[in-house]
Amino acid sequence: MKTYQINGERLWDSLMEMAKIGATEKGGCRRLALTDLDKQGRELYIKWAKEAGCSVTVDEIGNIFCVRPGTAMSLPPVGTGSHLDTQPSGGKFDGVFGVLSGLEVVRSLNDHGIETKHPIEISVWTNEEGSRFAPAMMGSGVVSGRFALQEILDKVDVDGLRLGDELERIGFAGDVPAGNRQYHAFFETHIEQGPYLEAEEKQIGVVTGGQGQRWFNAVIKGQESHAGTTPMHLRTDALLASTQLIQKVEAIAKAHKPGCGTVGFVQVTPNSRNTIPGEVSMSIDLRHPIDEELTQMDAELKAFVKELCEERGVEIDLDPFWYYEPIAFDENCISAVRGATQDLGYSHMDIIAGAGHDACYVSDFAPTSMIFTPCLNGISHNEIESTTPEECEAGCSVLLNAMVRMAEGVSEKLSETATETA
Amino acid sequence: MKTYQINGERLWDSLMEMAKIGATEKGGCRRLALTDLDKQGRELYIKWAKEAGCSVTVDEIGNIFCVRPGTAMSLPPVGTGSHLDTQPSGGKFDGVFGVLSGLEVVRSLNDHGIETKHPIEISVWTNEEGSRFAPAMMGSGVVSGRFALQEILDKVDVDGLRLGDELERIGFAGDVPAGNRQYHAFFETHIEQGPYLEAEEKQIGVVTGGQGQRWFNAVIKGQESHAGTTPMHLRTDALLASTQLIQKVEAIAKAHKPGCGTVGFVQVTPNSRNTIPGEVSMSIDLRHPIDEELTQMDAELKAFVKELCEERGVEIDLDPFWYYEPIAFDENCISAVRGATQDLGYSHMDIIAGAGHDACYVSDFAPTSMIFTPCLNGISHNEIESTTPEECEAGCSVLLNAMVRMAEGVSEKLSETATETA
Repeated sequence: MKTYQINGERLWDSLMEMAKIGATEKGGCRRLALTDLDKQGRELYIKWAKEAGCSVTVDEIGNIFCVRPGTAMSLPPVGTGSHLDTQPSGGKFDGVFGVLSGLEVVRSLNDHGIETKHPIEISVWTNEEGSRFAPAMMGSGVVSGRFALQEILDKVDVDGLRLGDELERIGFAGDVPAGNRQYHAFFETHIEQGPYLEAEEKQIGVVTGGQGQRWFNAVIKGQESHAGTTPMHLRTDALLASTQLIQKVEAIAKAHKPGCGTVGFVQVTPNSRNTIPGEVSMSIDLRHPIDEELTQMDAELKAFVKELCEERGVEIDLDPFWYYEPIAFDENCISAVRGATQDLGYSHMDIIAGAGHDACYVSDFAPTSMIFTPCLNGISHNEIESTTPEECEAGCSVLLNAMVRMAEGVSEKLSETATETA
Repeated sequence: MKTYQINGERLWDSLMEMAKIGATEKGGCRRLALTDLDKQGRELYIKWAKEAGCSVTVDEIGNIFCVRPGTAMSLPPVGTGSHLDTQPSGGKFDGVFGVLSGLEVVRSLNDHGIETKHPIEISVWTNEEGSRFAPAMMGSGVVSGRFALQEILDKVDVDGLRLGDELERIGFAGDVPAGNRQYHAFFETHIEQGPYLEAEEKQIGVVTGGQGQRWFNAVIKGQESHAGTTPMHLRTDALLASTQLIQKVEAIAKAHKPGCGTVGFVQVTPNSRNTIPGEVSMSIDLRHPIDEELTQMDAELKAFVKELCEERGVEIDLDPFWYYEPIAFDENCISAVRGATQDLGYSHMDIIAGAGHDACYVSDFAPTSMIFTPCLNGISHNEIESTTPEECEAGCSVLLNAMVRMAEGVSEKLSETATETA
């Protein structure tokens, strides 16, 4: 099928320009949701989108929607988008690449003189990272109906600042009702944030779904006492019990390939060299693409916690506070991505999204898929997050061609810069 | 042998009076070294000591020495003492009981009209806890020559306040050279801070020595990465490696009875639910009363660290920054304590001090032993630290009689309150 190229240099330049807003010393980005820097990033993006001929609206939770008209405006748009906010010590690509790929698609459609039957819409979802205001993926979560608008507006950051007030303050408390959006199809382009594409030497990951996740908080209670005067057999060391739980999380994940199990957060009380730990708090994160397996992992964890309490004489409070069902993306959208990738001649593999993405919530209400591109050493959520202009160009080209396909694009004229392949 | 009783009610009243200075809501005490509260505590004690007829001097590191004259002032004193500073959330007895037992000994000697050949000296050692200024046992450590005076005076607290300046500020930068003290014998009375006496239902612990200690800082370095996108087999999780090290510390201690092994401090980096830990810092504390065993424990730890680096692909930096040789107390002093206990009819057992005490440093330069009394559930370094008037009276009575024995006391007259037993 006929394919179109995007302008890789222009995409890269826009990425680098956006990265200046909140740039960190180590080459990363710190642009937390609803800060002055987020406002600057949003405004720069809107300026670019308007220059590319888009109309711009903002909804009640601050999501930005930029529309390039289609020939049949009554039809639902073909959408793409991601987020502009970053982690506190984030990189230049996580999220931003997905937004600016959308912009580059519009710019390239203009270059190529392509009209599409369906409108093309680029969305910037508010607060995907969840670093300043929890939970993550807020904007897409409100639109999907997973979160209630008012509850989200009332969230506060560590300084007690209210999300709704901060939205007002930066001028992004829009008037479009948050919710009830329709898409003919939706795509999100994103760096993989994992090592699979690099390890397999593939240019494109055709994302077929998202892992299920079960998140827990665990508090292990033992008996605090003096490290020099309490004999080993009379101790109830909360940390020692915790080590067994941490190892069990690993063992459960390894027994359920390709599941993941992680303890990322640990807090020891009183955390003094001279004192046997009386209490340990920890996070537990279990993930699996297949729900039945994830349920089994959850059951094994709970059974082990009971055993451990008996074995070590500790009390364990296990709070399973979040469950996120595995997501299967839409077959047509997946085919559009895979087809575009093949037509463009890129190497590719099917892949499951390990992290949460706005596209996962969008898939609640619209046919959706994602396009992954490699990132150096699989590292993300880190200032050293890295990718190349060529990798970005490949991902964005796949996006353009998948969207043209779904939006029923017709090339009216070929601009000077357009490249057509057989 | 003839024995003398102390006034248990007076001792308890003094303990309760001192506990008002820095009293905490939960019934404990917060009287950190060289604070205004420490100054108040020291001044109250000096007032009491002067009222009991003692002369008072202060040395360059703020140690207070209160002397009740002997009939042969050229002889070295028989000493006792402990500390008045507490942990940040400390109890009413740790340290204070040892100081006020000394005071009660002097008061009782006065009551009983006993003259001793050797002078009697009560010492208050500066900053035993090491909570505000590290290291611990500073005052006795300077006098023993383990620490250099100037280095200690230059130590700063977390607010950058210099120890020497704080000593000046509270009026306890004395003019007596710190060091070169002589004792004919030295005793320290202390709550056990462990569970042995309670478990064995003994009133007195005859302390025969102090455990050796080896302290380490360990830093375990893995690879920080995303918890959702990094497959289990590609992880280098610093926390998982750490769990094995923590368990090995326990295993080593259990294999070398009655040794102790504790990891009390753990810090995970970046400590985020969503991120595989890239680095873990921890403390390791190994203790044993026999030096050869402690050396063996140290060797086993180091060998395991090497194995673990290979097994988990982590880097481990193990810093053995402190070694404290096991201490054997003086046989004559131990006999004096055991003899006094038996003469008074208290149940007793030999015991090894698990924690560090000023007496351990004093034993560098003087014949020394300690007297332990039970504390509720073996709990110390805690606001709920608890003991009874009867337990305190027993410990202090043993101290009085051991000191009279070593100081060659002679009862000149019997006061109304004195109780003489066969």
